[in-house]
Amino acid sequence: MKFDLDRTTEILKQTPYTLMRMLDGLSPEWTRGSGDTENWAPYDVIGHLIYAEETDWIPRAEVILAQAENRSFTPFDRLAQFERSKGRTLDELLTEFAHIRNVNLEKLFGFELTDQKLESKAEHPALGEVTLAQLLSTWTVHDLNHIRQIVVWMAKQYDEAVGPWKEYLSILK
Amino acid sequence: MKFDLDRTTEILKQTPYTLMRMLDGLSPEWTRGSGDTENWAPYDVIGHLIYAEETDWIPRAEVILAQAENRSFTPFDRLAQFERSKGRTLDELLTEFAHIRNVNLEKLFGFELTDQKLESKAEHPALGEVTLAQLLSTWTVHDLNHIRQIVVWMAKQYDEAVGPWKEYLSILK
Repeated sequence: MKFDLDRTTEILKQTPYTLMRMLDGLSPEWTRGSGDTENWAPYDVIGHLIYAEETDWIPRAEVILAQAENRSFTPFDRLAQFERSKGRTLDELLTEFAHIRNVNLEKLFGFELTDQKLESKAEHPALGEVTLAQLLSTWTVHDLNHIRQIVVWMAKQYDEAVGPWKEYLSILK
Repeated sequence: MKFDLDRTTEILKQTPYTLMRMLDGLSPEWTRGSGDTENWAPYDVIGHLIYAEETDWIPRAEVILAQAENRSFTPFDRLAQFERSKGRTLDELLTEFAHIRNVNLEKLFGFELTDQKLESKAEHPALGEVTLAQLLSTWTVHDLNHIRQIVVWMAKQYDEAVGPWKEYLSILK
């Protein structure tokens, strides 16, 4: 599928509510890890999604749209949530994620994006030249990627409990 | 985590509503494929989940609990949904899945499972001896596995649209 702004926002709007529905009322065994920075539990993922809303997608879209002389992105701290989420409940994080996502979607609509604006470019610190349409596509796929990460982590909690069926469950491999 | 009946039903109860939330209002580009039996679109996955409710989890639990002479399972048809879902909308399938899942959870509660019943065994046609606790754990991980399959399929629709960011998106690999 080619990039399409309406198709993109369909998913971006949904993600916080999908995650609320998925994680609502679950015992901490399904959502909280030991703080392992290389194996994020659902709680850690939600913190990461909030931080990305604050520092990544819309700020980078603004860098691209500004069309200033120096259009380069600030590097992203992929472990920031381990400090920033401290002491917060999962419910609080989910609510905050929904709020900041909605604020950011309002900003996105406010850009009144045209095909021309969507092809505006900036310099990614490692990947080179990127367009606004690619950034917004990545925002969407990043959501799906982290939903995947959450269900994989949850499934692994039952890695042994499934017994011989493990062989048929690709998520445990 | 060791098997726990309450932890297990927490997830089983949630799955239909998570999927409704995730897929509600999405354009068919995100949910419908070409009928490729080796690359299931979200629509195909929901049909599979319904069929598994009808023929797999509870019927197999009943085989185990019957403690009859011959406790072996009927093999499962993993492509049945391509015939059975024909002509149905995604919304209809999602509603049907929620309904049959709730009926099956009622049956599960009706078994009044004890630790002893959970350790009851039967013969899987390919995997050998399995317990009821392992079957119920597999039911849960099977849900998570198919949520993963859905988000991976959706992400792949934007495989090209993300441009150079593909390198950072493990879901596209």
